[in-house]
Amino acid sequence: MAALARSVLVTGSNRGIGLELVRQLAASPRPPQHIFATCRDPEGPRGKVNAVNLPSIRGAVRAVGSHLKDQGLNLLINNAGVSSHATLRSLDSREMLSAFATNVVGALVSLLQEFLPLLEKAAKGVGKEGLSCSRAAVINISTKLGSIGLCLKVPEAPMYPYRASKAAQNMVTRCMAAELQDKGILCVAIHPGWVKTDMGTEKVLSREQAPLMVEHSVQGILTVLANLSQDTSGAFLDWEGNTLPW
Amino acid sequence: MAALARSVLVTGSNRGIGLELVRQLAASPRPPQHIFATCRDPEGPRGKVNAVNLPSIRGAVRAVGSHLKDQGLNLLINNAGVSSHATLRSLDSREMLSAFATNVVGALVSLLQEFLPLLEKAAKGVGKEGLSCSRAAVINISTKLGSIGLCLKVPEAPMYPYRASKAAQNMVTRCMAAELQDKGILCVAIHPGWVKTDMGTEKVLSREQAPLMVEHSVQGILTVLANLSQDTSGAFLDWEGNTLPW
Repeated sequence: MAALARSVLVTGSNRGIGLELVRQLAASPRPPQHIFATCRDPEGPRGKVNAVNLPSIRGAVRAVGSHLKDQGLNLLINNAGVSSHATLRSLDSREMLSAFATNVVGALVSLLQEFLPLLEKAAKGVGKEGLSCSRAAVINISTKLGSIGLCLKVPEAPMYPYRASKAAQNMVTRCMAAELQDKGILCVAIHPGWVKTDMGTEKVLSREQAPLMVEHSVQGILTVLANLSQDTSGAFLDWEGNTLPW
Repeated sequence: MAALARSVLVTGSNRGIGLELVRQLAASPRPPQHIFATCRDPEGPRGKVNAVNLPSIRGAVRAVGSHLKDQGLNLLINNAGVSSHATLRSLDSREMLSAFATNVVGALVSLLQEFLPLLEKAAKGVGKEGLSCSRAAVINISTKLGSIGLCLKVPEAPMYPYRASKAAQNMVTRCMAAELQDKGILCVAIHPGWVKTDMGTEKVLSREQAPLMVEHSVQGILTVLANLSQDTSGAFLDWEGNTLPW
């Protein structure tokens, strides 16, 4: 089996899905030559990850660029983000703004803006045609709770700030896919399943209720990534490759 | 023809679609008994409208409540909002946050939170069953550009902040519809068409290119509103009543 990509960067990699992505990529039969694992606070499992800090992002871009030398970055996995629970009644403005600032602006838009030159460099590599993770791709870890079409059970998951920020993130993924296609960069939104991680189970549910082991979710995600192409750029897929409604 | 509603409040009513909604409602054969027209700066046509200012919203709620006495507010039309143009490259964080703060947090969530008691009061009115604008409804003026599914032509409309904020708004509309249904309150997102208004034509296009006259759009919207029911709560409809993809 070919390597998924020569170089991969995973944000939010200190716990949960991000950490497991890094583990499985490193342990794969043909691992990437470079795996960059970023997070906001590497010290602890609860070091909530975001990427609003521009100097910090730019430092990461310089560090990654110096490792990759004249090669670009093939695969950027935006996994960083925060969850946020509130009903219509309990919701306050700051919570809405904060979820949007972290999940859309910092962890997605600012990050991509800064890493775009490295992705473009990878996309221009010799012999690269079509769209794939081995050429150049942006994978945004999304959630089924960000599906507007599936938004039916609010009482069971009263998470206005999280849902609104993830719907906005899905829109940005789709716009990026349309805009970056001609540059040879693939963009996809992935729902990792409802996973037994700290974030997947905080507040609302006990760990036992989240049905999916993180190892299983990440195995699925990596299989989906390996099969992405021109046809699936701009899609919203779950960890098994099923298309979700926006 | 029955009146659309006994009382209606329209935000962003100093120009464009908001102003025309107020005009046509007032000129209808059976006009509402109360039409409340709000905007941020009533002095000028360019007084951009939002509703982040909580004391100002609360003042409006008190004023509206005192006019309506023991009747609640039947119909809240959230038309206020700002447009915002940027490509991925030209985009800055503040612009993204500002569009979200105005279009989602201020003009929608905060406003609804404060007006909810008046809507609930209307929904409980004697002899009211099912969902309709004459009972209690929240109409959020959205846009086809907020449809993630239709987001294909980014180069022609590079409007990341506007699109992301409107996708988030659509999510909030859908969550509200699910949450408020049992209280007898209908929620719908409406795309008014691409209208010859200041906002519909600013920057990108000349007025001649926007295909729809505001009078025509608003006639359509009011016909759609009159026909809303339980079956269409939570929908995303255009001014002709067609369902749009999220």
